[in-house]
Amino acid sequence: MINIIEFINKENLTLASIKALKKSNIIISYSKDFESLVDFIDSSAEIFFIDSNEDADLSDLSILADLNVKACELAISKSFEGENVSLISNEFLKFGFSNLIYQIASKYSQKTEINILPTVSAVDYTSSIAGAPLDDFVAINFANYLIPDSEIINKIDSSLKANFILAIYNPNSNKELFNKFKDLALEIRKDAIIVIVDVEDNSKEIISLNQLDDSYIKESSFLIVGNKATYIEDNLMITPRSYVIRNEIISYTREFFEKYLNNESPRGFDHDCEYLPCHSDMEACDFCYCPFYPCGESSTGGKWIKDKNVWDCVGCTWIHKENVDNCIREGIDGILNEVEDLNLKKEELLRVRRECLLKTK
Amino acid sequence: MINIIEFINKENLTLASIKALKKSNIIISYSKDFESLVDFIDSSAEIFFIDSNEDADLSDLSILADLNVKACELAISKSFEGENVSLISNEFLKFGFSNLIYQIASKYSQKTEINILPTVSAVDYTSSIAGAPLDDFVAINFANYLIPDSEIINKIDSSLKANFILAIYNPNSNKELFNKFKDLALEIRKDAIIVIVDVEDNSKEIISLNQLDDSYIKESSFLIVGNKATYIEDNLMITPRSYVIRNEIISYTREFFEKYLNNESPRGFDHDCEYLPCHSDMEACDFCYCPFYPCGESSTGGKWIKDKNVWDCVGCTWIHKENVDNCIREGIDGILNEVEDLNLKKEELLRVRRECLLKTK
Repeated sequence: MINIIEFINKENLTLASIKALKKSNIIISYSKDFESLVDFIDSSAEIFFIDSNEDADLSDLSILADLNVKACELAISKSFEGENVSLISNEFLKFGFSNLIYQIASKYSQKTEINILPTVSAVDYTSSIAGAPLDDFVAINFANYLIPDSEIINKIDSSLKANFILAIYNPNSNKELFNKFKDLALEIRKDAIIVIVDVEDNSKEIISLNQLDDSYIKESSFLIVGNKATYIEDNLMITPRSYVIRNEIISYTREFFEKYLNNESPRGFDHDCEYLPCHSDMEACDFCYCPFYPCGESSTGGKWIKDKNVWDCVGCTWIHKENVDNCIREGIDGILNEVEDLNLKKEELLRVRRECLLKTK
Repeated sequence: MINIIEFINKENLTLASIKALKKSNIIISYSKDFESLVDFIDSSAEIFFIDSNEDADLSDLSILADLNVKACELAISKSFEGENVSLISNEFLKFGFSNLIYQIASKYSQKTEINILPTVSAVDYTSSIAGAPLDDFVAINFANYLIPDSEIINKIDSSLKANFILAIYNPNSNKELFNKFKDLALEIRKDAIIVIVDVEDNSKEIISLNQLDDSYIKESSFLIVGNKATYIEDNLMITPRSYVIRNEIISYTREFFEKYLNNESPRGFDHDCEYLPCHSDMEACDFCYCPFYPCGESSTGGKWIKDKNVWDCVGCTWIHKENVDNCIREGIDGILNEVEDLNLKKEELLRVRRECLLKTK
């Protein structure tokens, strides 16, 4: 049998992987990974180091791929002799063994049990360091050296346009691709927030996309690009999800939306309003009261007044842009039929908010 | 402190999660998840069940979201009292706590340490059951009920077009979305291979997309759509990656490519060839000898002759389609300058193969 054991680090090993490791009498591993796992390896197990040739340049993808092929061939031949083999690789290795072992095993008529041990993914691991950046996302490997750059660029382009979060493995392994990624991201998602996690020392840098330059990206970097709702708070990168707050509708709000529903509320910028100046950057007063209040979502500038259970919108000027208001007016038409719908149809309203966020941000 | 512990099942818990669980004196959990982890929970810990109201319909996303909010509020208030809290959720829960806990914690001025324990992802877990289907992929959650269907449909559409692998969480939770997904996939990637893993009993069904109907999809299903290179072998779903085989160039191949490079080899279908009929479905004989041989990649019909180290292309008719040959001729121009390049520039040639696969399959 062959166990394919991918891992991040010792603490993030699974019980199933440890059990498989302990039972193995043959261990095939890069030397660095072996050191991390030596506590779980039977002292009588025979060890084969994939990188036993010290001159091998593991940053050369072609050399790395060849070494991986040899490691798989060795694992298969040992398993045919009846041995219990663990083939170890690190999730941050530029490409792992899972796919390859099946491709190579199919050369032989003799069958061997292949046991892929699922692992904590690099995406989940780096996310937990960054904060909680994930929602629908794509994972793209820049070290995927048999995929033409044109295909990867197309993947980057379409996932940026579709508001995916992007998780990029090995951003440093293809400079041309990295520069193209940067250009596309600046063009399509210029306000994006990104995190670069150094997987060697678990440090992170959360920056806006336009601050990104080559100096941030090292051999051990992992990069995540947020979506249009991602925000930074307390040096954490957070993508809001699934949070619905239903509030008592106060009398001012009620009055405003009764007027709104009767087409009596202001449109565009209301020069005569007695409360001016209210926010800076005002373009439109259509939603002097916000139909999504409280959204509990900081990406447009709102925030909690601490300990008061009050959502403060003063920092949110998004709702006062003309194109935003037009989008919202159109979106809530047919949903908001009476004032109570502000609560009763909150989910539908928040979907309209999201739709307009995508169109206008 | 609050530990956010997501998990798949007991065997796939990480050491870090177990350590955090054992130290917690407050456990907040859905009852089902608690049962799986009870062995790792201190007997003196105080337990709060999120679904203590037995009538709560957890398949109702709105009810589930509200329960999650309450669970986060409870975790935060207990942590403010100095307790060590673990908030447990299952990776297959329709949406987890990581993002929410940060959103809710920001209501308070008091700080609490939030410790997100990374977990084996549902994508990695179901992949290990399916075989080795992953390469660049997208993860999309059909239970993401605050995201408008239009956004999710756009994500599906663009990721199918860009040759991503698609991993779909909770395909059963939005029927309309599921039907739209099916239509789009049949239109854009009609030959796609998909796997449906039942995460309750770890069973899998690997089928082609046109076999997919509602009967395959249950509450506990997880779905993965392969890319254009994905193939099935021995009831496993495999996406080939990073495999480069360099072979001795035999005399027939050498002769053929010498002619090819001198523009003396056949173009289109060669009616007069003495070896006809060779394959079925022949359209073009331009690559009577394949410039990618051996590709070691079964998605176009090739396979290993077992135990002979010989790659058998009889089943691959892809290379004999007219549009394919035109694509390859164009692609290898400038790369294949002399016969030795078949080996020396194998990686570049395989990228051309991939490019043409995307354009023509």
